[in-house]
Amino acid sequence: MSVANTPTARTVFIISDGTGITAETFSHSVLSQFESVSFKQVRVPFIDTVSKADDVVQRINRVAADQGTVPIVFTTLVDPNVLARVKTGNALFLDLFGAFVEPLEHNLGMKSSHSMGKLHKGVNSKQYRSRIDAINFSLAHDDGQFVTGLAQADVILVGVSRCGKTPTSLYLAMQYGVKAANFPLIPEDFERQALPTTITPFRSKLFGLTIQPDRLSEVRHERRPDSRYCSIEQCRYEVAEAERLMRRDGIPMLSTTSKSIEEISTTVLQDVGLDRHTAY
Amino acid sequence: MSVANTPTARTVFIISDGTGITAETFSHSVLSQFESVSFKQVRVPFIDTVSKADDVVQRINRVAADQGTVPIVFTTLVDPNVLARVKTGNALFLDLFGAFVEPLEHNLGMKSSHSMGKLHKGVNSKQYRSRIDAINFSLAHDDGQFVTGLAQADVILVGVSRCGKTPTSLYLAMQYGVKAANFPLIPEDFERQALPTTITPFRSKLFGLTIQPDRLSEVRHERRPDSRYCSIEQCRYEVAEAERLMRRDGIPMLSTTSKSIEEISTTVLQDVGLDRHTAY
Repeated sequence: MSVANTPTARTVFIISDGTGITAETFSHSVLSQFESVSFKQVRVPFIDTVSKADDVVQRINRVAADQGTVPIVFTTLVDPNVLARVKTGNALFLDLFGAFVEPLEHNLGMKSSHSMGKLHKGVNSKQYRSRIDAINFSLAHDDGQFVTGLAQADVILVGVSRCGKTPTSLYLAMQYGVKAANFPLIPEDFERQALPTTITPFRSKLFGLTIQPDRLSEVRHERRPDSRYCSIEQCRYEVAEAERLMRRDGIPMLSTTSKSIEEISTTVLQDVGLDRHTAY
Repeated sequence: MSVANTPTARTVFIISDGTGITAETFSHSVLSQFESVSFKQVRVPFIDTVSKADDVVQRINRVAADQGTVPIVFTTLVDPNVLARVKTGNALFLDLFGAFVEPLEHNLGMKSSHSMGKLHKGVNSKQYRSRIDAINFSLAHDDGQFVTGLAQADVILVGVSRCGKTPTSLYLAMQYGVKAANFPLIPEDFERQALPTTITPFRSKLFGLTIQPDRLSEVRHERRPDSRYCSIEQCRYEVAEAERLMRRDGIPMLSTTSKSIEEISTTVLQDVGLDRHTAY
């Protein structure tokens, strides 16, 4: 193999009989442990027949031949025939189910059902419908709209404008079926030195998000450049006042400055006691 | 161990130094292969010190003692000391990284960085910001609002009211950073027998969602019970006309009736050619 053929990026196939989203998320997580390597991802979903598996093998072998290195393949394939066929390709195979189903079968004293794409199949399940309901709820109760439904909320995020309430509400709804409303704290509230009266009846559901004023100023600048709204003075004032209100009323509070929506959501679920033991 | 102590649900711990979302998604996928067993999930995120690991071991051992069966533990812990400590608990351990990092190290000819919670760390990364931008875009361009930004859209979902456009747009934005607008097809368009003129300049970005009339009627009934809007006649009319318009203009089309937002999104990404090889 000549040096000229050395690829700059390793090709990674994600091969699944379903969407491949599980394998994709997992592969990102594992491959991020190899920071100096760059990877090029090819997602191949809905591979549920041996004939589709044959097409995939051809793609794998073509990459192996073209690049002079074998691609890395993450699979979540449960049909043994499809899996066996895919594995005839010239690649490093990381079989996510294979690695864990066997110890689980042993531990649980039974065989697995080997059924495909189970995870996202249940669009008529109670769990799936509650996710869709939660998305609709969170959309309708974004930014203090439609306050009449707040009694149905699982959690109400509060904080100054642009501190991360909306994406977090939507993530909680989408990923966990949590009905997450959000309500802004605005200069009017700071002048009155009190939480909006609309949300005070629901104090036990309130969770505060806060943010460093300089980061807030940056975010607001993208939205309304050179406004009073985005000035560092205004951001400092609002954040200080919002934190004071929340502290005074004993509302749990989290800074979003260096946190992803996944990290914020995880903390919210734990603190509000929504990360209850999910039976599934 | 007495029979009376046999638990009805097996306890599953998800233990991570980050949010645990990767391990959680993966565990659901694997455990769904054991349909007859019921599982009770306990997510334990942010375990990044040996002392936190000790607390977890106590929780594991308490469950094992109380239930008379060892819990199942999925871990994504990269710190070898933390992992080793957690593994002293009385459980079946399924070490997600351990199973795959070693073959990858061998294949790539290097050691992994063993750094924690990498996946969601980069809140200042371009990739993370583009996700947040996409969420804001999809929210602003929901249901035909703010049409001035449509030129920036990666994809524009079209279809009758309540066929699944909004949750799919938000999922595409949240999971993939795809700017997904959506635009409703309404009775006015069917009378004119033409797509809305607002979206015709962007035909190559259009993707149609459709749905079985009886399912649509059900969904609309939840929103506006006993209305003309939810009647089966109206739903049949709108779906037939919408499909006719989309077919006539050669817009790719997918029925959402029995598909999850993950499945719809995966198909949209592939068909519109957005599932391009992501370098990461």
